[in-house]
Amino acid sequence: MAKRATLQDIADKAGVGAGTVSRVLNNHPYVKEDTRQRVLQAMEELDYYPSFSARHMRTQRSRLIGFLTDEVATSPFAGDIIKGAQDAVWDQDYILLVIDMGDNPARAEKAIKTLVEREVEGIIYAAMYHQPVTLPESITQVPTVLANCYIENRSLSSVVPNEFQGGYEATQALLDAGHRRVAFINIHPTEPGTAASKGRLAGYRQALADYGVSYDETLVCKGIGHAISGYQFGYELMRLTEPPTAIFCGTDRTAMGTYDALKEQGLRIPDDVAIVGFDNQDSIAEALRPGLSTMQLPHYEMGQWAITYLIEQLESDSPMQTPIQHQQPCPYIRRDSV
Amino acid sequence: MAKRATLQDIADKAGVGAGTVSRVLNNHPYVKEDTRQRVLQAMEELDYYPSFSARHMRTQRSRLIGFLTDEVATSPFAGDIIKGAQDAVWDQDYILLVIDMGDNPARAEKAIKTLVEREVEGIIYAAMYHQPVTLPESITQVPTVLANCYIENRSLSSVVPNEFQGGYEATQALLDAGHRRVAFINIHPTEPGTAASKGRLAGYRQALADYGVSYDETLVCKGIGHAISGYQFGYELMRLTEPPTAIFCGTDRTAMGTYDALKEQGLRIPDDVAIVGFDNQDSIAEALRPGLSTMQLPHYEMGQWAITYLIEQLESDSPMQTPIQHQQPCPYIRRDSV
Repeated sequence: MAKRATLQDIADKAGVGAGTVSRVLNNHPYVKEDTRQRVLQAMEELDYYPSFSARHMRTQRSRLIGFLTDEVATSPFAGDIIKGAQDAVWDQDYILLVIDMGDNPARAEKAIKTLVEREVEGIIYAAMYHQPVTLPESITQVPTVLANCYIENRSLSSVVPNEFQGGYEATQALLDAGHRRVAFINIHPTEPGTAASKGRLAGYRQALADYGVSYDETLVCKGIGHAISGYQFGYELMRLTEPPTAIFCGTDRTAMGTYDALKEQGLRIPDDVAIVGFDNQDSIAEALRPGLSTMQLPHYEMGQWAITYLIEQLESDSPMQTPIQHQQPCPYIRRDSV
Repeated sequence: MAKRATLQDIADKAGVGAGTVSRVLNNHPYVKEDTRQRVLQAMEELDYYPSFSARHMRTQRSRLIGFLTDEVATSPFAGDIIKGAQDAVWDQDYILLVIDMGDNPARAEKAIKTLVEREVEGIIYAAMYHQPVTLPESITQVPTVLANCYIENRSLSSVVPNEFQGGYEATQALLDAGHRRVAFINIHPTEPGTAASKGRLAGYRQALADYGVSYDETLVCKGIGHAISGYQFGYELMRLTEPPTAIFCGTDRTAMGTYDALKEQGLRIPDDVAIVGFDNQDSIAEALRPGLSTMQLPHYEMGQWAITYLIEQLESDSPMQTPIQHQQPCPYIRRDSV
């Protein structure tokens, strides 16, 4: 019996690199259609069965998943993405190898090389905040799922927070409590702003519309996500001729500043002004007095979703042909500020 | 010329496992003296030169360092340990592979196996809070440095915060501002408490003594590190016949609760009561009004120290024979609460 063809044999025959063959085997969308056809042709001629693909052989070997991140491991904001991923991999008897590139994206190429050489079966790429990202093409050597980020052309599967739903439900919580003058201290000062500020503003506007409340631009503030914005606008909003009775704060840190401003003005929360935050950042939301009702950023769930979906694809005989873009809801965490 | 002896050859001759040979080559203290002698004897008989050791060969190959942690990567508290380690490895052209075991120490054995199989040259083990740890013996297969933790028998090198100095200087900042009734809301309710609560209390007492202020037990509160402790004791302390004019809070979260209690009682910070925190937790210390003067937990510096020391040992022709225990100072971060 003839020696079984290797990836390199196929690559040589098709006149492409071994990485391209690997991408074809992984049904990766980055491969041009005519290249794909040449690789498939070479496989057929060499009697290579994709069901015994390199991907599958690798699956039987390493049970490792790479986790590449900009700053998730080192910043206090999104560590729950790793926690969710971590719990999911241990549950399924895989192990996660994390590489944090810090704020230096130039490290990506080297980090990917290291992970691929260490035979990871797939990669999760996670970002500290919800944003579009650009990744080296080398990441397509193995199946990849993005968490808390996406690529503009949507050629890789991703999971991000449902910002629209979060903004909608935050506003709804205040409207349901009877408020009709509802301010919004958003988290980004520029237009169109980030994925988060844009989606939440749309949700805020839709909720107002659904409750028959007209949109009042003077109630929407362009903050920067820090306590100082909440403090500053906590004063400015109350000086309006018709001040709000409720404030939706784009981050819990913003709410922390708003609390201080309101208390300094002798206003009680929630009796005089009701507040909803965003993030559910443990050390703040619980520690504020009264406890802050807030929307939870689903970091844990995004990490879990990314791993679960990736492993499903790795272990499937017929992985998805088309990348999917999943939006994870942001649950409302009720405390005492509404 | 005869084939060069392998680790396995030596192991076979000495009647031990290859891991033991590796430990001897790495001068690891876990090896019994008679075993070490047998291995050294076998090396001599096989003409094996330790200067061409497996450790050294590995150094030339992988340039990988494993980072094993209980919850540092996934919790918001100590992520700067990874950041410090990360920056230090990239600077020296190494790469860090992180495995976070979450709250499940049973995963350690498997995690270590994975890292060693992936040819890491050394391991940093980091804990979320300063504590003694127990580690599987398998970690001694490669040089290991502990960060924010230590083993009771001190057989591995470690770096931990200098809690005594931190407690001393926090108290000193208040004494230097003229205060003589200085309360301390500590972070652990039991005796003798954690490494942190014990060390800081000793520092607090020493500072009082050095300034000729007698120790008053009624001013020392056993908190739990959360805002609720700061809030509760912020009331209780002010009800004393002779209330404090300054409070040293064992965490920034504690200080956050104390701020609320004092403000509710109409007291101004720092005019009526001065406050010093501990941790320098970004999202809190800066966001409080007034900004919180606090002691910084040197997470970043501990990560950096651990990597720098480990790489020095890996690249040294004569690595340290004796583990060293380094205490990293906690710098005082001055804001506006004193």
